[in-house]
Amino acid sequence: MTDARFERTRAIVYQAVSQVLVAEGLVGLTVDRLAAESGIARSTIYRNWPDLAALACEAFDELMHQESLDLGADPREELHDYLADYARRLNDPTYTAMLVALIEGSWRDEAFAEVHRRAFSQTRSRAGSILRRAQKEGLIDIRLDIAQCVEDLVAPFLYRRVVTQNRITPRQVDELHARLVKRWTPSEK
Amino acid sequence: MTDARFERTRAIVYQAVSQVLVAEGLVGLTVDRLAAESGIARSTIYRNWPDLAALACEAFDELMHQESLDLGADPREELHDYLADYARRLNDPTYTAMLVALIEGSWRDEAFAEVHRRAFSQTRSRAGSILRRAQKEGLIDIRLDIAQCVEDLVAPFLYRRVVTQNRITPRQVDELHARLVKRWTPSEK
Repeated sequence: MTDARFERTRAIVYQAVSQVLVAEGLVGLTVDRLAAESGIARSTIYRNWPDLAALACEAFDELMHQESLDLGADPREELHDYLADYARRLNDPTYTAMLVALIEGSWRDEAFAEVHRRAFSQTRSRAGSILRRAQKEGLIDIRLDIAQCVEDLVAPFLYRRVVTQNRITPRQVDELHARLVKRWTPSEK
Repeated sequence: MTDARFERTRAIVYQAVSQVLVAEGLVGLTVDRLAAESGIARSTIYRNWPDLAALACEAFDELMHQESLDLGADPREELHDYLADYARRLNDPTYTAMLVALIEGSWRDEAFAEVHRRAFSQTRSRAGSILRRAQKEGLIDIRLDIAQCVEDLVAPFLYRRVVTQNRITPRQVDELHARLVKRWTPSEK
């Protein structure tokens, strides 16, 4: 298969993965179902993606990183853009349905849990590098632990969207941003 | 059926629900499967629990409220005990596997989502009344929004346990408690 043809195949298979996960969750994810949904031969799917857990995470990862915003240059703006982009992704029902299906799968399946941990540590390291830059530029108190700041940054919207199932409004983005910047700013003393 | 016999039946059915949810998630939850797992007749299950989504939430609710601690009398202690109890529940793999299965189900199934919203609004109102008492007794700044405080209270551990899948340590309970009390205390000015 040429690279261009493989890219097309991959896009179609990823699309099928997200349709199956949204409609049925991980239990619906079988090679037969993906072949039926995508029109791609079962043998092609088997050959390229022998591990369906890894395929589900790849497809999610693709969705997660597509159309990523250019983040602002100033660390305060960069944090705001990061939160706005995160809210936009969580507000996409396909994204959140896939996220929830992956979390659920990783609680029942160890092979899945490992792929999931890898994907999430990438997300955390992206947020972490934004926060470390902000710390370097004096927006975040040097004594604060970056892992804790990552949790402060991502936990509220995740809870609001995944558990209480409310959409995140632009005003909530502004409010969380203002609250975190205030909390993290080095004190005057 | 006498009340005592019904109580026994109910306990056995709830136990079967949690076993099925932990092993297979919501998709495994059928009357046939519950009958096989529990030894209770299908007709008894049908008659008492015509709605399996509601049954799953009932069983979860039972698990959620069992062995609830007596909370401390002082609002500061009461908050600490609430967090410690919440951490203890989240650290129980059965509890969290069920929680995740319910969240996942409610993203794909509207009937389920409604039952889930009802269960979660009970949890939030319990946390809310503890926080309102603390606000009345001067531990929480009167200007703070209680719904926001509930989110501050429950989101971090939920994220840590459900998404990153780490256990919550007693030290993390103490740290979150100290951080929240400090953040919520009315300022001197």
